[in-house]
Amino acid sequence: MTITAAILVIGDEILSGRTKDKNIGYIAEYLTNVGIDLREVRVVPDVEEEIIAAVNALRQRYTYLFTTGGIGPTHDDITADSVAKALGIEISEDPRAIKLLLERIKLEDLNEARRRMARIPHGAELIENAVSKAPGFMVENVIVMAGVPSIMQSMLDNVAPRLKTGAKMLVESIDTGGLPEGAYAAGLTEVAKAYPSLSIGSYPSFIDNRFRNQIVVRGKVADEVQAGLAAVAAMLKKLTLDTPIS
Amino acid sequence: MTITAAILVIGDEILSGRTKDKNIGYIAEYLTNVGIDLREVRVVPDVEEEIIAAVNALRQRYTYLFTTGGIGPTHDDITADSVAKALGIEISEDPRAIKLLLERIKLEDLNEARRRMARIPHGAELIENAVSKAPGFMVENVIVMAGVPSIMQSMLDNVAPRLKTGAKMLVESIDTGGLPEGAYAAGLTEVAKAYPSLSIGSYPSFIDNRFRNQIVVRGKVADEVQAGLAAVAAMLKKLTLDTPIS
Repeated sequence: MTITAAILVIGDEILSGRTKDKNIGYIAEYLTNVGIDLREVRVVPDVEEEIIAAVNALRQRYTYLFTTGGIGPTHDDITADSVAKALGIEISEDPRAIKLLLERIKLEDLNEARRRMARIPHGAELIENAVSKAPGFMVENVIVMAGVPSIMQSMLDNVAPRLKTGAKMLVESIDTGGLPEGAYAAGLTEVAKAYPSLSIGSYPSFIDNRFRNQIVVRGKVADEVQAGLAAVAAMLKKLTLDTPIS
Repeated sequence: MTITAAILVIGDEILSGRTKDKNIGYIAEYLTNVGIDLREVRVVPDVEEEIIAAVNALRQRYTYLFTTGGIGPTHDDITADSVAKALGIEISEDPRAIKLLLERIKLEDLNEARRRMARIPHGAELIENAVSKAPGFMVENVIVMAGVPSIMQSMLDNVAPRLKTGAKMLVESIDTGGLPEGAYAAGLTEVAKAYPSLSIGSYPSFIDNRFRNQIVVRGKVADEVQAGLAAVAAMLKKLTLDTPIS
């Protein structure tokens, strides 16, 4: 069974470039490692109708939807209410969340703004985090997490054991040893056709004014990945012997 | 006039977490600086129907759509053909692009795979880059760029002067000096209501086991931004005098 996911990053600060997102890459790698296939990512602003539209598009299409950002106490933190609206369920202050907040905040400091962090859609499971205590939540297949990376990472560790996972994606890569993409593209196309169950990609980096390319072979069956990898290696070896590197 | 944009990142390697995207943050900051409002970002895999669906959703909604990735010579580079299909226009080998490739590649090395990099939708303008010579292109309002950051950045510099731009977003920020979000959230809500033309956000960072929060005031009219900033500063000053920092 294939388990799929999308990420929805919520926040004007990412779209303005003021904050450089660090969560997409982290979650992507994390999900790959536990056997969940990340299929799509979207970034939207702190605008209710944009959040609702994206939540509904993504939650209906994938096994899980992970959101980051917009669950703090300020006026621009509208994720929890927007997710509740998207799912058509009620939201109110949750005594379990209040209890968690009181582990960090004194009762006399628990003002109206901070109480907003305890607004949780009905029927949701809380997602605790060791860093700030303010919880995220999982409601139906939507997993709502903080935007601050250390807090998000703590929440991901907390929620991961509750998720269904599929076969883990096995990944092998080969450095092309200076061979440019244009030299091996035809050969790689042949290998990709011969191993249709594998996902074979070519990833150029441009370092020190030279391309350093990696060919990556991904699949869920170890024998197939190894066979594909061997085919790529043989193809590269033949080219390296045949072709002077320009 | 408001000029808007979306980014579409194309590539399995981003979704698997193998490659950490560096283009979204760079383009976001670049567009903000030239007066284009980035409104949405999507990341999709190297799958034709996914690319076509995202291109059509985004190009119809925003002034410009910028894509990154998938324009190299290998079998997984399907962006140019997918964009042409999305727009319903023909694509073929472009003599202008071949000429550019020959500045870097010897004629005898210009094999079938490399020629694929010269496939350009009819009616497109080329976007040159100094790094690899293989061009991107702009067709209608879709700007197709490479995924390798240094090449993408060169293309962005090349295409930017051709774009319409609007009033530049002015951004001011204030450090809350250790005041936590929960202490100023109510006051900030009042300021945000008093300045509806401004976008006012609160951005927590968690550094050295403490929150360091920034309040950011954004708008397109300098006097309004300064007035909003002053109101935020006055609100924070009052709180700092009234409230012991916990």
